[in-house]
Amino acid sequence: MNKKMIAFITGKIMILEAYLMILPLIISFIYKENFLHKGAYFGVIALLLILGNVLSIRLPKDNFIRGREGFVIVSLSWILMSIFGALPFVITKEIPSFIDAFFEVVSGFTTTGSSIIPDLNVLSHSNLFWHSFTHFVGGMGVLVLALAVFPKYSSSSVHIMKAEVPGPTFGKLVSKLSSTARVLYYIYIVMTIVVIVLLMFGGLDLFESSLLAFGTAGTGGFGVRNGSILPYHSAYIEMVLAIGMLVFGVNFNIYYFILIGKVKDVIKNEELKYYLIIVFVSIALIVMNIASKYQSIWQCIRDVLFTVSSIITTTGYSTADFGKWPLFSQVILLLVMFFGACAGSTAGGLKISRVIMMAKMYVAEIRQMISPNRVITVKYEDKPLSAKMQKNVAVYFVVYMILFTTMLLIVSFSLGDFMTAFSAVAATFNNIGPGLGKVGPAYSFADLNNVSKVVLSFGMLAGRLEIFPMLILFAPATWRSEERFSR
Amino acid sequence: MNKKMIAFITGKIMILEAYLMILPLIISFIYKENFLHKGAYFGVIALLLILGNVLSIRLPKDNFIRGREGFVIVSLSWILMSIFGALPFVITKEIPSFIDAFFEVVSGFTTTGSSIIPDLNVLSHSNLFWHSFTHFVGGMGVLVLALAVFPKYSSSSVHIMKAEVPGPTFGKLVSKLSSTARVLYYIYIVMTIVVIVLLMFGGLDLFESSLLAFGTAGTGGFGVRNGSILPYHSAYIEMVLAIGMLVFGVNFNIYYFILIGKVKDVIKNEELKYYLIIVFVSIALIVMNIASKYQSIWQCIRDVLFTVSSIITTTGYSTADFGKWPLFSQVILLLVMFFGACAGSTAGGLKISRVIMMAKMYVAEIRQMISPNRVITVKYEDKPLSAKMQKNVAVYFVVYMILFTTMLLIVSFSLGDFMTAFSAVAATFNNIGPGLGKVGPAYSFADLNNVSKVVLSFGMLAGRLEIFPMLILFAPATWRSEERFSR
Repeated sequence: MNKKMIAFITGKIMILEAYLMILPLIISFIYKENFLHKGAYFGVIALLLILGNVLSIRLPKDNFIRGREGFVIVSLSWILMSIFGALPFVITKEIPSFIDAFFEVVSGFTTTGSSIIPDLNVLSHSNLFWHSFTHFVGGMGVLVLALAVFPKYSSSSVHIMKAEVPGPTFGKLVSKLSSTARVLYYIYIVMTIVVIVLLMFGGLDLFESSLLAFGTAGTGGFGVRNGSILPYHSAYIEMVLAIGMLVFGVNFNIYYFILIGKVKDVIKNEELKYYLIIVFVSIALIVMNIASKYQSIWQCIRDVLFTVSSIITTTGYSTADFGKWPLFSQVILLLVMFFGACAGSTAGGLKISRVIMMAKMYVAEIRQMISPNRVITVKYEDKPLSAKMQKNVAVYFVVYMILFTTMLLIVSFSLGDFMTAFSAVAATFNNIGPGLGKVGPAYSFADLNNVSKVVLSFGMLAGRLEIFPMLILFAPATWRSEERFSR
Repeated sequence: MNKKMIAFITGKIMILEAYLMILPLIISFIYKENFLHKGAYFGVIALLLILGNVLSIRLPKDNFIRGREGFVIVSLSWILMSIFGALPFVITKEIPSFIDAFFEVVSGFTTTGSSIIPDLNVLSHSNLFWHSFTHFVGGMGVLVLALAVFPKYSSSSVHIMKAEVPGPTFGKLVSKLSSTARVLYYIYIVMTIVVIVLLMFGGLDLFESSLLAFGTAGTGGFGVRNGSILPYHSAYIEMVLAIGMLVFGVNFNIYYFILIGKVKDVIKNEELKYYLIIVFVSIALIVMNIASKYQSIWQCIRDVLFTVSSIITTTGYSTADFGKWPLFSQVILLLVMFFGACAGSTAGGLKISRVIMMAKMYVAEIRQMISPNRVITVKYEDKPLSAKMQKNVAVYFVVYMILFTTMLLIVSFSLGDFMTAFSAVAATFNNIGPGLGKVGPAYSFADLNNVSKVVLSFGMLAGRLEIFPMLILFAPATWRSEERFSR
């Protein structure tokens, strides 16, 4: 284990977080907040700069990063970012408990959107900004950002990117990794600005538009007003957000292809096709199921479009109380909740690509049993899916379910009802946000005990980083193997 | 597709069912039931003999059975057995609706134990006997029985046995298949007789002892009195059944090994070890969780032992209302419900062997990611698990979950609450019996609509036959491929 390189890069990430915190510091000056708020951000920035510079004082001679170092760097960075990111809330006493603040910031960075704050009015402007800004930072990934802005420290940084970008495959966009990271961030920033501008057309000020756009871009879901998006009572704002969420649920490679004019590749893209089909079919089924309860079919479509878009992209904004919809509609929402949106997007869940591959493996397995002597190939994106890839996808699902049930078991120890426990784990592990029952949109995660909050924080990180980085960080073998393989 | 051979063997199975129905016919004479009951069984027996003999009038020249024919024979036989097995209930009007009677008999043969009969007192002795006897027949498998009693019709009957005996691997016991089938049935019958005798020591008459023993041996769960096992108020009977269920949840190969003195193989058996560990740990955790609610710790252990034994073996007998236990205990029960007991036993669920393999693959996957260049092997029963076997187990789980969610989606269309819908699918697909909520032990499946009943009947058959036979029977490719591969 190249510990020096791990320290070096996590140090750089801390410096990066210090830079990012300058934004809420500026906000606290703009809104003339009291000394405690300015001081909180100033102090944490100073702390991050000192620690970060100590850790990254010199680039280690051995700057080689293997797979496991990539995983450890990513998971460790996310945990440290969340620890320091939680401090301003604790110092300003707007979230007095550190565990609560940690949960909230993990929820922010992982773009989950589960909250322990029952009333958003307690947050000052600077904290409210930082709260939503974590969604924006976590959406595209903080290490991708580091790759984009810092000079190249290692020739093997690809392992970091692999560990942070969601999805079963990692496709390199352009020849150089730092250019890929920069392209991704340019697309991301431009699209976020478009959402901000569109929301300002809807009558919101720059501050509120930015915060809602951060929640949309990161598919996070932290709101600005109590009651999420419902209080705006604006079809326009709802449509901007609904379409916005869907757009940020698409693999960013697609936008790069559009940029460089490869429209044919976009049309042929299988994941995009199924993503749109699933969204459309879900909306159609739910509308048919609940239309009779609405006086206006347009209001019905508006609510369903928004809800499906919010759930499948694992954002978690809400306008309608789907907890009161018929069970059939709820089960569809539950399904797309686990599906998630596309790989390489800011969304959580299993990812559409994995779901398609699993569905194809299901069909192939039956056909193989019918004709054992024929060679049945599973094709994905026009290429045959290797046996290794098939095994990886299936094993990922096994690992996912084992972790899911383990967390459910721990959380159920202190929770009263199945619906609350099940949906609390599902909503955090899939990075959605609000669950059902006592962690539904009308409640918060505040009443859970600390063990549950820590377990669910772990779950949010595991969900965002696609499980393995977190498991590897805490696996004894990661640290044991060091002696045997020491360099 | 060798249709002639399929017709021939399903014909033989119908003749076998006719023989089996002689037992309830005798019961109807013993208990001097009215003409309708005697006539119902007599008529169905005659019908089965006529149809069966017509179908199997001559052994086809081409008696070769490939994998897919094996699957089709098994699934078709089970469906036909259930259709004809339902007729006596319909003719005697004790279950007037055919769909209801079909559901009930499928539940019997698949050893599920879910019931649409709210009050068992409506059943006459002959019907009550047939009701529980289906558990005994389905437990070890009707085609295994056919292999044991009929002469050898095909040199490739192994495909039938493969399709009917549960578990990821099928180990041949003795050199000849018909001998294997006979050995299995001898063990099965002797152990069932032991349970009958033990229950008679507890003060029950031969009739009731036999019925409860059938439910235990098949790990089925149909009761004799309303309220399952609670009305007996006997610690002795409860212990006989609890231990009995656990014993029938063990791979029958184990008993064969004991019979031939290979005790070392038994002690080394990994599935047995983990089965006992899981049972013990589940009991310990639940007792710790609920002990404070009991005045006597022995009563607590008695209830928990019985419940865990009933659930993990997917029997479904009940003495305590675990729907009122704390959530943590319920989640443990939910887990072992999906685990099921050992492969090659009469129990349902995923099977312990698959669960162990999946857990080992989980650990191996993490270790592989930590050290990508090392060769990590997964060992099971002291042998390395091939990549193909690992893929099969993982894909089985994917197929299992896809089918589970599909059924949940259909059932949720007509059911009101998540708990009822989820547990109805879980309880039938895993062949357990009663669910929770409105399909809990205090209720029945009677109020579900016909679509749900048919879907859940399909689920019970799919669960008992390990999914693929049922999927293959209804796959268009099974019947299409015939032309291309016609012989």
